[in-house]
Amino acid sequence: MEVKEARQYVVDKLDYAFKPSSIGVIGASRNERKVGFKVIQGLRKSGYDGEIYPINIKATEVAGLPAYKSILDVPAEIDLAFIALPAPRVFDAIKECVAKKVKIGVVSSSGFKEIGNGDLQNEITEYCRENEFPLIGPNLVGIGTPYHNFNCGFIPYLPNKGPVALISQSGSNLLAALGSSQVDHFGISMFVGLGNKADVDFCEMIKYADKEPNTRCIAVYIEALDSPEAFKKACLECEKPITVIKVGASKIGVKAAFAHTASENRGHTNEEYDKLFEESGVMRENTWQEFLDTSLALGNCPPLRGDNVVMITNGGGAGLLACDHFERLGMPLHELKEISPELKSNIRSYMPDFGSPLNPVDISGTATSDMYGGALRTAYRDENVDGIMISVCPTAVTDVDAITETFIASHKQYKNLGKPIIRECQGGRECREAIMKLRDNGIPAFATAEQAVNAMFALRRYSQIMNQKEELIKKAQAAEAAKNAEEEVNA
Amino acid sequence: MEVKEARQYVVDKLDYAFKPSSIGVIGASRNERKVGFKVIQGLRKSGYDGEIYPINIKATEVAGLPAYKSILDVPAEIDLAFIALPAPRVFDAIKECVAKKVKIGVVSSSGFKEIGNGDLQNEITEYCRENEFPLIGPNLVGIGTPYHNFNCGFIPYLPNKGPVALISQSGSNLLAALGSSQVDHFGISMFVGLGNKADVDFCEMIKYADKEPNTRCIAVYIEALDSPEAFKKACLECEKPITVIKVGASKIGVKAAFAHTASENRGHTNEEYDKLFEESGVMRENTWQEFLDTSLALGNCPPLRGDNVVMITNGGGAGLLACDHFERLGMPLHELKEISPELKSNIRSYMPDFGSPLNPVDISGTATSDMYGGALRTAYRDENVDGIMISVCPTAVTDVDAITETFIASHKQYKNLGKPIIRECQGGRECREAIMKLRDNGIPAFATAEQAVNAMFALRRYSQIMNQKEELIKKAQAAEAAKNAEEEVNA
Repeated sequence: MEVKEARQYVVDKLDYAFKPSSIGVIGASRNERKVGFKVIQGLRKSGYDGEIYPINIKATEVAGLPAYKSILDVPAEIDLAFIALPAPRVFDAIKECVAKKVKIGVVSSSGFKEIGNGDLQNEITEYCRENEFPLIGPNLVGIGTPYHNFNCGFIPYLPNKGPVALISQSGSNLLAALGSSQVDHFGISMFVGLGNKADVDFCEMIKYADKEPNTRCIAVYIEALDSPEAFKKACLECEKPITVIKVGASKIGVKAAFAHTASENRGHTNEEYDKLFEESGVMRENTWQEFLDTSLALGNCPPLRGDNVVMITNGGGAGLLACDHFERLGMPLHELKEISPELKSNIRSYMPDFGSPLNPVDISGTATSDMYGGALRTAYRDENVDGIMISVCPTAVTDVDAITETFIASHKQYKNLGKPIIRECQGGRECREAIMKLRDNGIPAFATAEQAVNAMFALRRYSQIMNQKEELIKKAQAAEAAKNAEEEVNA
Repeated sequence: MEVKEARQYVVDKLDYAFKPSSIGVIGASRNERKVGFKVIQGLRKSGYDGEIYPINIKATEVAGLPAYKSILDVPAEIDLAFIALPAPRVFDAIKECVAKKVKIGVVSSSGFKEIGNGDLQNEITEYCRENEFPLIGPNLVGIGTPYHNFNCGFIPYLPNKGPVALISQSGSNLLAALGSSQVDHFGISMFVGLGNKADVDFCEMIKYADKEPNTRCIAVYIEALDSPEAFKKACLECEKPITVIKVGASKIGVKAAFAHTASENRGHTNEEYDKLFEESGVMRENTWQEFLDTSLALGNCPPLRGDNVVMITNGGGAGLLACDHFERLGMPLHELKEISPELKSNIRSYMPDFGSPLNPVDISGTATSDMYGGALRTAYRDENVDGIMISVCPTAVTDVDAITETFIASHKQYKNLGKPIIRECQGGRECREAIMKLRDNGIPAFATAEQAVNAMFALRRYSQIMNQKEELIKKAQAAEAAKNAEEEVNA
């Protein structure tokens, strides 16, 4: 339901949803296939060390824990209520939570607005707002953070630790991303599936993530915004980069989005969303892969302050794919001599005669880790170089692992220069392992040249957004003032 | 160097390059870091069971095999000569190959046109053509096929077996793809790095791959075409789908492509290449990932005869990403009732009440393998359905493995209907394993919705190309006749 702007009490209380000391599971179940069981199982498996209070009208024990008939019977304070009851029983449970002074609630149950029960959902929301009891969901898959061993819902995985906060309206895409986080070492700081977002809105999650210490990039999957203005304001106030993917743009997608999370775009076209995201200073991606790749880069790297990117490769083919893609995006690579007069001869000393000191710099298929290291240091130290892209192709004489170690060491040494570095490495098992190791060390690494280029381009776009931020804020304030004035005249 | 059209003697002799009974390694070396050693090591590691004859001017033994001073000294017939000598010594070695009646030659040495030695390269090429001794390379990384345990060059991996012939001008991209073939179960039938393509041209490789029995799709990486007309003719005569990726479109890429494989586009712009590929009936991809994904689909699936694609998913989010992307590509999904009157109610019987029988068909997060199997059979059996896309999201109750087994069984049962099926499955280890198992069973499977959509769209484009093929051939013939007539008038 709409909010005028992010409510401070909601933002404050969200800490109890991501880092609760105690949880009441209302609808706790002894049936292993039910959410009311899975949530407790998931909490334990993830290593959650707070208190868990199962609430079950019949059982005296659930999953080895003493169960209570009502949350009102629990002889302790409760931070978070996780409600997994059938839809018609949810409202009563919420009233008890309010009576018990539970800080915040999460409702996993479906059967609300997405199947036509909008009135019930709205009634619950209004009650929650009157009582300042924030409610996340309903129709939600889970919430958690790997930094507190906290996996609350029916998500089978706790993701790898990392800098990206994932705020997803879709449960299925959240599940998918959390699973691949483990497999692909995509690091996540906190995650939540917002579901129908009856009460707690995107804007409040964004404001919370902005203050959350492990988060360095906020990635948001949107089917529809109920409160575009509140979203814009939250984004403009946010100090961390935000990436979004917005679906439901297609004709058939509009219907599917409603059936999924009761999403209504209320006449907002795809182009209007484009405009909104631009005015909000957030980066919109088209595909899921780009959304993840961009978030990974923004979570790990400083912005790219200019477009002087040097690409160092041992394979001409990867270099060509990259320079074509840079030009396709409107940010062509420059020749070394255009970047800095000495760069070409300095880099030349780290490559064999038959290498090619253009840009991409092809240090040849015989490149060793020393050659990569020398070229990399040269690029780091040249003050005209803004960012560095490294591509490693696994020839028969390439020691992928040694080259990777060299990067990690250089990255540590020169990190404070504020120059982003991105690595591309496609090949067999040794390349996949290199990508994982680099990601674990905070260096975005990808298997294809175009993914690496997209990531670098995102860092440039973010830098431009930062430069425009003040102007965007002024514009938004002027628009709001004009709107208020108009409303006063009409009143 | 230019060819007027694919030469039949070259196409015929290529079989000796991919399936030789005997190989002479000219420049065989005892130094383990040299190509002349690596090639023998690679042949043995891959399990090559033909004869290997090391040729070395000084040694009497290389890698445990008796060595000969000259290929002329070898007391047996030789199918393939692999030449790994310094550039200035290559021509003499070729003359000896011709004298020895070696069937075909491969030159891995660099140091020719790509560094300014174009005259030497041309002289060698003319000699080879006069003597009908086809030469692949120079500046080539390797050639091989996993179906004959044949890995000849300095490529560290033999790829997984499968339907895609990979013809790459770039060695580094070939290396990258062959490595990831193992990791990602991307199946390859034969591969070659063409390098400077002094003599043997793309057109001849395409005509060979068209007859090669394990190949069902031909994937070609191009930096420049020396013989666009011969390429077009070969493609139009080819009965298998062809995908291409053409780099060097960017301003800086033109220089980089020359430094890499001596590629010159002789004034042909990127737009002219677009036109050429369209007239040739081949599919051009922009990014490396799309190139691989499209090839995988075309190598495994029949063409998509119409645009009635049914998507079955257990996660609304993946469905939305897919239907937006289908619309972005200009092939929107249709609602079930538009596809076939009974489809909706037939599929309905395999999903819970709270599922959504739109298209995407959301059979809900509780979907079992039986529900998937029933929905899948229904879509297969409905004669108005042209293709099926399946998305599986790993909820806490999803048995990804059982669902995957159901697909593989259905695929076997209904394969003869000629309907493509594509699977999307993003998540943890169980999803990655499912993708690999499906690929091993000839079903294209991907981790993101957009990749799956791109693959399905490629099958539709190929179907359209097949329908236009006759017209394209007529057009090409008319253009050729007009050109010949003009030349006669001018003569």
